[in-house]
Amino acid sequence: MAACCCRGGRWGGRAPLKRPLLRRRPPALRVAEAASPARPYVAAGGDEAASGEELLEVCRRRHFLRGGAEPRPALPWRAYLSGCHPGFGPLGVALRGNLAAQWWDSALAFREQVFAVDAPLRGPAAAGARRAGQGLRLLHSETLREALRGEACVREAGGLSLEEVLGTAGVLRESLLPGALEQYVSCLELVNKRLPCGLAQIGVCFHSVPESEHDNNNLRRIGERTESLLAWFSSPRTAGQWLDYWLRQRLQWWRKFAVGPSNFSSSDFQDEEGRRGFNLHYSFPWGTETIETLKNLGDTELLEMFPGDSSKLLGRDGRKNVIPHVLSVSGNLDRGALAFLFDSLQLAENPLTKRKNSQRKVLKLHPCLAPLKVALDVGKGPTTELRQVCQGLFNELSENRISVWPGYLETVQVSLEQLYTKYDEMSVLFTVLITDVTLESGVVQLRSRDTTMKEMMHISRLKDFLTKYVTSAKNM
Amino acid sequence: MAACCCRGGRWGGRAPLKRPLLRRRPPALRVAEAASPARPYVAAGGDEAASGEELLEVCRRRHFLRGGAEPRPALPWRAYLSGCHPGFGPLGVALRGNLAAQWWDSALAFREQVFAVDAPLRGPAAAGARRAGQGLRLLHSETLREALRGEACVREAGGLSLEEVLGTAGVLRESLLPGALEQYVSCLELVNKRLPCGLAQIGVCFHSVPESEHDNNNLRRIGERTESLLAWFSSPRTAGQWLDYWLRQRLQWWRKFAVGPSNFSSSDFQDEEGRRGFNLHYSFPWGTETIETLKNLGDTELLEMFPGDSSKLLGRDGRKNVIPHVLSVSGNLDRGALAFLFDSLQLAENPLTKRKNSQRKVLKLHPCLAPLKVALDVGKGPTTELRQVCQGLFNELSENRISVWPGYLETVQVSLEQLYTKYDEMSVLFTVLITDVTLESGVVQLRSRDTTMKEMMHISRLKDFLTKYVTSAKNM
Repeated sequence: MAACCCRGGRWGGRAPLKRPLLRRRPPALRVAEAASPARPYVAAGGDEAASGEELLEVCRRRHFLRGGAEPRPALPWRAYLSGCHPGFGPLGVALRGNLAAQWWDSALAFREQVFAVDAPLRGPAAAGARRAGQGLRLLHSETLREALRGEACVREAGGLSLEEVLGTAGVLRESLLPGALEQYVSCLELVNKRLPCGLAQIGVCFHSVPESEHDNNNLRRIGERTESLLAWFSSPRTAGQWLDYWLRQRLQWWRKFAVGPSNFSSSDFQDEEGRRGFNLHYSFPWGTETIETLKNLGDTELLEMFPGDSSKLLGRDGRKNVIPHVLSVSGNLDRGALAFLFDSLQLAENPLTKRKNSQRKVLKLHPCLAPLKVALDVGKGPTTELRQVCQGLFNELSENRISVWPGYLETVQVSLEQLYTKYDEMSVLFTVLITDVTLESGVVQLRSRDTTMKEMMHISRLKDFLTKYVTSAKNM
Repeated sequence: MAACCCRGGRWGGRAPLKRPLLRRRPPALRVAEAASPARPYVAAGGDEAASGEELLEVCRRRHFLRGGAEPRPALPWRAYLSGCHPGFGPLGVALRGNLAAQWWDSALAFREQVFAVDAPLRGPAAAGARRAGQGLRLLHSETLREALRGEACVREAGGLSLEEVLGTAGVLRESLLPGALEQYVSCLELVNKRLPCGLAQIGVCFHSVPESEHDNNNLRRIGERTESLLAWFSSPRTAGQWLDYWLRQRLQWWRKFAVGPSNFSSSDFQDEEGRRGFNLHYSFPWGTETIETLKNLGDTELLEMFPGDSSKLLGRDGRKNVIPHVLSVSGNLDRGALAFLFDSLQLAENPLTKRKNSQRKVLKLHPCLAPLKVALDVGKGPTTELRQVCQGLFNELSENRISVWPGYLETVQVSLEQLYTKYDEMSVLFTVLITDVTLESGVVQLRSRDTTMKEMMHISRLKDFLTKYVTSAKNM
């Protein structure tokens, strides 16, 4: 296992744990407050379990994760990692959605040659699994009962045996790859038989959770995850180079959104057939977990999928016709979202109490990933008018695909500091305060999550400012 | 059953089967050819089965649908309708993706009060189904074998019975509603307990296909579909008005994208408990099929989901606290995509042959739904330079989220008419031809799918023209 450490990420190898310039100095700074000293969330010594618990509690309270509600017992991190949990909350769904959108942008970098595909969740099983009667089976309860009656009859007379039922039952996919490979021939036609080409897909896959990881509850023995797949078909001649290319590209992609890029790493492996591959990991407090796997599959799976006439598999590599090698690049976007939650957590002094053990928690998710870009709240002034301004602004920003939190609808009075604490936990990039000053001069107060600084800005500039802020963060 | 006929759709009740102005007169028209006379695809008399076959053949050839490839027998329409098919091809995936994006825009019209949620595909089963041991069960093959050995033991000694295994096995969702209802309480908190509020989700659901509809192949007895759900929680006082509101809104939404809006209709129903609802239908050549269902569920499901303390269900309706009634608005986006494929097919004279039985087929999908907005091709001129221009344009348009077909990569020479015929079947809105004129003056030829007219346009104007074309079609 060779550790690979490509340079990449937003702040390369130079200052791995500091905030980028963009976040420290927002443009058009007018009114400045001293930023609270923030430190990245690197738990000290044996404190890791406790720190993970703290983050979990924030993620549940702020609706990134579900599963903390009474009367069920709170789930541990491993339940979320293994996909045995009730799913993400609305903020987590938005975070994963943003991650998926970024993934599409990166997979479609070769837009001319890559197609987005889809396939049913049922089957096809890998040929091997189907033969051996393995895999996750989908059955109607009645079918199962019939089979059982049949099994009794098999012993006595000769009804339908369980193996026969299993042979015809639906198989739920455990990977996106077989469903994508099935579409190789028809997509080859679409790209005019030119190699390289690729098929991209995001979808839910199922998996068995190893015995040691689950509780005594059988319901939890099957986990699910949101998988991203790029199946890349290239000439055998260049397959090795493409594997290296995608390794670099994928590792850079993960690091690009990270506060601590060095927590994303890779290691190589060889499977039992000697095929090369790489795992990409994230270093959680309890150890590294795989978030993506790249593998050079050769042509084995393709030839198995299309037995018989292999001439239809031939793609063009310059003037030659070749059966391509398949690279599979498959990520777990659920785990990816969890990794970025850990990556983003930072602790800062709590301006409300100043006590050391009540540090303010800030989720500094990358601007592209943050589920909410801005929160709108009202300060002092005539309530009805201020809310009208908020609603107008809410609509304008929403229509421009900027996600807004309508804080002005909150009726329970809280202090501004309490509000900022809440929004920092929700990872909201900016808080906009509409007050009677806004009614007079059109100026709003804009408070940054990352710097905690406040500035004044004309309301008409907000849309462009927020759009540019997110876009420029993306292109860094 | 009362037929409801709201006015709506892009050209209201006035001229239901003509093309809208937008399509007949593209702006900045310079070079004009006579448009081929097009007629909507209304099959005459008993010709319906044959016409459906023709469309199916086009949809497979142009990669909207999969399932026509050898060696498997070609699937009939009912396989696609029931969700027992190998899925959509890349163009169908893009069509359904565009439909889903439009659905989100419409569901999030009340953005302040609506949250996008997600839930695992496994369970929770509706309480009733779980008790009765019904539903689609997800089991690992090994678990099933163990259960069977257990069942033999039950008779002899006392092992695990099948019913016990079924009781603990994963249940696959047959509707998005239970998974969304489970999140009501936590989302109520997010909206500050204000009613009305809503939860929106798109995801895959499974269903049993009635015996009469499936072949003898057991593998096909379970279908899957992409469901859209808006669960709307409102005061009992206003639930009836909201049901009427959403009926109007949803019917208008479907009709907005239709060439023949009158093929989208609705009918009301009452369930066994006397609860009101509406089905929205599309008139396929063989009869109407349900594409969406709206239902006022009252508070039954909510009280069942959260037994015991019902105070946490209370939302605010003005100054009163009430347990809301639930409206479920659930659509089948797969069927919706099929409906629009039928809706969009038009036949035109074939300029290549002029023979009556070789009519040109055009899929006139709404500009918002068409998977490809533009195809780029090269005409006469120096190949390398022209391709460079194409590639630059491809990148520019792609980066602006305009989907482009890189026709310039095609190496097999075909006539322009053959090319247009192909693109019309692919529903490509415009074909851009880059020639040596482009190299000299920057002018390209733009050919419209809907009018078949050609005009000249400066290459620098293309991006804005295409963006505005799609946007204005959306806002009509």
